[in-house]
Amino acid sequence: MKILLIGATGTIGSALADALESRHEVVRVGHTSGDYQVDLADQDSLRRLFGAAGDVDAVVCTAGIARFGPLEELSDEDFAFTLQHKLMGQVNLVRLGSSKLPPGASFTLTSGSLSQRPSPGTAAVSMASGALESFVRAAALDLDGLQRVNVVSPSSVKETLEVMGADPGPGIAAADLAETYVKVIEGEMTGQIVEP
Amino acid sequence: MKILLIGATGTIGSALADALESRHEVVRVGHTSGDYQVDLADQDSLRRLFGAAGDVDAVVCTAGIARFGPLEELSDEDFAFTLQHKLMGQVNLVRLGSSKLPPGASFTLTSGSLSQRPSPGTAAVSMASGALESFVRAAALDLDGLQRVNVVSPSSVKETLEVMGADPGPGIAAADLAETYVKVIEGEMTGQIVEP
Repeated sequence: MKILLIGATGTIGSALADALESRHEVVRVGHTSGDYQVDLADQDSLRRLFGAAGDVDAVVCTAGIARFGPLEELSDEDFAFTLQHKLMGQVNLVRLGSSKLPPGASFTLTSGSLSQRPSPGTAAVSMASGALESFVRAAALDLDGLQRVNVVSPSSVKETLEVMGADPGPGIAAADLAETYVKVIEGEMTGQIVEP
Repeated sequence: MKILLIGATGTIGSALADALESRHEVVRVGHTSGDYQVDLADQDSLRRLFGAAGDVDAVVCTAGIARFGPLEELSDEDFAFTLQHKLMGQVNLVRLGSSKLPPGASFTLTSGSLSQRPSPGTAAVSMASGALESFVRAAALDLDGLQRVNVVSPSSVKETLEVMGADPGPGIAAADLAETYVKVIEGEMTGQIVEP
């Protein structure tokens, strides 16, 4: 398969690119590096990406930035930014991609386990993750099996916790998480929220 | 309690007002009628409402319009409208209300069972409902028990199905649904998604 991997330069994305490239052609997309660059919050940037990348069989997104903070400190702009990037950026990948990709193509997005098990200071990002999971359940029905759409809902990644100086113990290793994405990308499922 | 009921003129809201008014003071808020009017998508309108209503012990929202349609027909504006009204309108009730309402106050919002069990043609509204449910789980942690926030996630209402000419059989009667809201408003729970 030719796989468009958005977020390929991040912690999850680079582990996933490594896991995919022995069997697939991986087009690495980043915000400022990679084969192509994209701004998820900008639909024109998404359109240019689909135009430039040509025919692809799968779109995978491990990107989607969001704002964190206690509810009383989150600004209007923090909510708007989080909805624009983490939520609508990924939703628009499906909306714009579904008319360009062939039958049998798939979309694999990334939410986060905060949707179901939040921590304090995560109201905006938890909201965006929950939105994305419900979107995927519903959108799969409208795609009607012609194309698949799923979302991986990871907890914290060990490597990210280490960089933050936190205890990596409860986290999942990026390489293990990558295996979950590979199963979703290569599998037959649709409309699923996949917890690694 | 003095209860600010937004959506009081709708099918669920009017049944809920009937159920509450024997024991509580109900301030009925509608879009164009009721004791006060509000536009959920307009934060200035929400601020004016909180100013005019004075001290309240509970905010309940049974309003929140959304757009329906197959994924390929939903426009950018349909997604933005649904996020602005059903999602951020209710989120902003909590954000603006939490600084104005006293300790012990509660917020009771309305999502919809489409968040977990969507039908075709509901990608935008399912997304907004899922977002609201995850927001409530997370926001309850930041409110830290000082104020409560919950969301009722109803399936279709019998009376609405009848008006639409659909089979009311699978629906829940508005009066029965109102009893669920009453339990949430008068209870002690927080951070809960309550399916009637």
